[in-house]
Amino acid sequence: MPYAHDRVRAIVWHEDALELLDQRRLPGETDYQRLTTAAEVAQAIRDMVVRGAPAIGIAAAYGVVLAAKARHAENPNCWRILMVADLAQLAAARPTAVNLVWALRRMERVMAEAGGAPVERFLAEARAIHAEDLAANRRMGELGAALLGERGAVLTHCNTGSLATGGYGTALGVIRRGYEQGSIERVYADETRPWLQGARLTAWELVQDEIPVTLLADGAAAALLRQGEVRWAIVGADRVAANGDVANKIGTYHLAVAARYHGVKFMVVAPTSTMDMSIASGAEIPIEQRAAEELLTLGGQPVAAVGAEVWNPSFDITPAVLVDALVTERGVVLAPDAEKMARLMAEAG
Amino acid sequence: MPYAHDRVRAIVWHEDALELLDQRRLPGETDYQRLTTAAEVAQAIRDMVVRGAPAIGIAAAYGVVLAAKARHAENPNCWRILMVADLAQLAAARPTAVNLVWALRRMERVMAEAGGAPVERFLAEARAIHAEDLAANRRMGELGAALLGERGAVLTHCNTGSLATGGYGTALGVIRRGYEQGSIERVYADETRPWLQGARLTAWELVQDEIPVTLLADGAAAALLRQGEVRWAIVGADRVAANGDVANKIGTYHLAVAARYHGVKFMVVAPTSTMDMSIASGAEIPIEQRAAEELLTLGGQPVAAVGAEVWNPSFDITPAVLVDALVTERGVVLAPDAEKMARLMAEAG
Repeated sequence: MPYAHDRVRAIVWHEDALELLDQRRLPGETDYQRLTTAAEVAQAIRDMVVRGAPAIGIAAAYGVVLAAKARHAENPNCWRILMVADLAQLAAARPTAVNLVWALRRMERVMAEAGGAPVERFLAEARAIHAEDLAANRRMGELGAALLGERGAVLTHCNTGSLATGGYGTALGVIRRGYEQGSIERVYADETRPWLQGARLTAWELVQDEIPVTLLADGAAAALLRQGEVRWAIVGADRVAANGDVANKIGTYHLAVAARYHGVKFMVVAPTSTMDMSIASGAEIPIEQRAAEELLTLGGQPVAAVGAEVWNPSFDITPAVLVDALVTERGVVLAPDAEKMARLMAEAG
Repeated sequence: MPYAHDRVRAIVWHEDALELLDQRRLPGETDYQRLTTAAEVAQAIRDMVVRGAPAIGIAAAYGVVLAAKARHAENPNCWRILMVADLAQLAAARPTAVNLVWALRRMERVMAEAGGAPVERFLAEARAIHAEDLAANRRMGELGAALLGERGAVLTHCNTGSLATGGYGTALGVIRRGYEQGSIERVYADETRPWLQGARLTAWELVQDEIPVTLLADGAAAALLRQGEVRWAIVGADRVAANGDVANKIGTYHLAVAARYHGVKFMVVAPTSTMDMSIASGAEIPIEQRAAEELLTLGGQPVAAVGAEVWNPSFDITPAVLVDALVTERGVVLAPDAEKMARLMAEAG
């Protein structure tokens, strides 16, 4: 079966430029933005041309390559100092996904090591980050799918597929592998307001894979879970704290609460690049607030009365106690807590 | 303070026609549809020109007036038999809200009694249904607001205001009264996908009332409840079963689960015309499935990949066990169950 994750490439390095599939225009149009500066990459991350925690990290790494090229050309002696502003700009593009900072730290290490002609060294590291993410997704797909048990339906939220990662996907990687091995017969996808990643992106990926996908309004999830067909809710993460608390797309926590109420298992799939052992719990994770217009307008037209206020956090925190399984490329953590997380990351080191 | 419920009139009988504020075009445009036949009224209910359980019942009652007028003019001898098809058409317009059937039964009783010039008698009954609903809302506003306790924020779902009722509102009536008496300082409103009644209608009503209103995505509700500012979730109902199970707009059950998880009280506000003692539990309530297009398109444009399926129930069932208070015009039922419901309705009889 030809899988979309082999065809869809959201992040492409091509002839000294970063090409990003413009995810704001999917599924109607598949346009690539060609970016040649770190500032353009930071803007593309802010504007959600590219989104998904691992994909943001990879895009930022390529952004550092562009910065290194420009700064080295500008001044081969003090290019490192000139790059500091570029790194800061990339780091500030979006606050919640820790993969962004994680990827920039890896690129910073290259900065310290790289010699007289550093661009190729930066590019090699960005390519490595990209390739390792794809490999991690494949591994997580295997590990997560092995947990699924009896054949049934699953429910997912947001988009965690090829578009959100270096390829294949985190939660969607588990779903792809689970479908392939016969454990999953249907995928229910929350449309995921306000940005509709489920409707626009996840459905698009699954339709291309010929995996049966059924969209539902986010608020319909509890009624669906009550029917008993869904065996697992499977989601990605933007940051996991040292105690196993999970930041992910707004609505994830709502889904986790409903899953627990109905005895449906809740799986979080995220590479160790998403773990942030520097913060004790989810309470310390910065939550990005996005523009009120995401709720006040629809297709560019005003939808709500002038004068209505908006609360539009882009992410929420699911406490570890609601997570049945955290799947990483290093292994599965059942019922994560601080001790198990520390053990996982020590092994990872 | 001038209240919108005194200004907004969703259902108006004017010069032998039913005028319905077209709720599909709010808040951008305030257009009235002028309907002169029962078939047009049934179509308007189906198409959601008018929506909200009590409002549907009132509109259908006026539809019967139009049917009586036409059928009596057509044949003054057997107009009653001719009306049977009109009543059936109105009854079939939407399946979940029991107020529709309830109002038609009241109008049928008039059919049996009305003599040679029946139209005025039908009109008087429709006007009575309309006026009684407004009075019930005022009463429920008092009873519900008396439960609120300490000043704080509330969260509501869908639209239950002047637009959904004969005026003032069910859940929104409690909120109006609660704000007036100082118990409520802010109203959070789920945008309520897929039809966006919260964004389009509830925000519009509350902005006109100068009651602070903050919109949020339905999936953000659990994260909001976790913050502790919200003291009550307050919703309406489309049908309440004999055991206290509640059918209401899709997403209500999701909200009820999240409210219980966070220790936030859950209030359902509905007149006794919404009670259906003929069914033992919510499992027997027919749930309307609406068009896939509501999720597949946005502002008329396709938003999801061709090939994605859709699960789009318009309502869900909240079991009575999750309801802390059921507020009716006959009194408040705390933690409703079959016995308490029977007692309430016996008193009502």
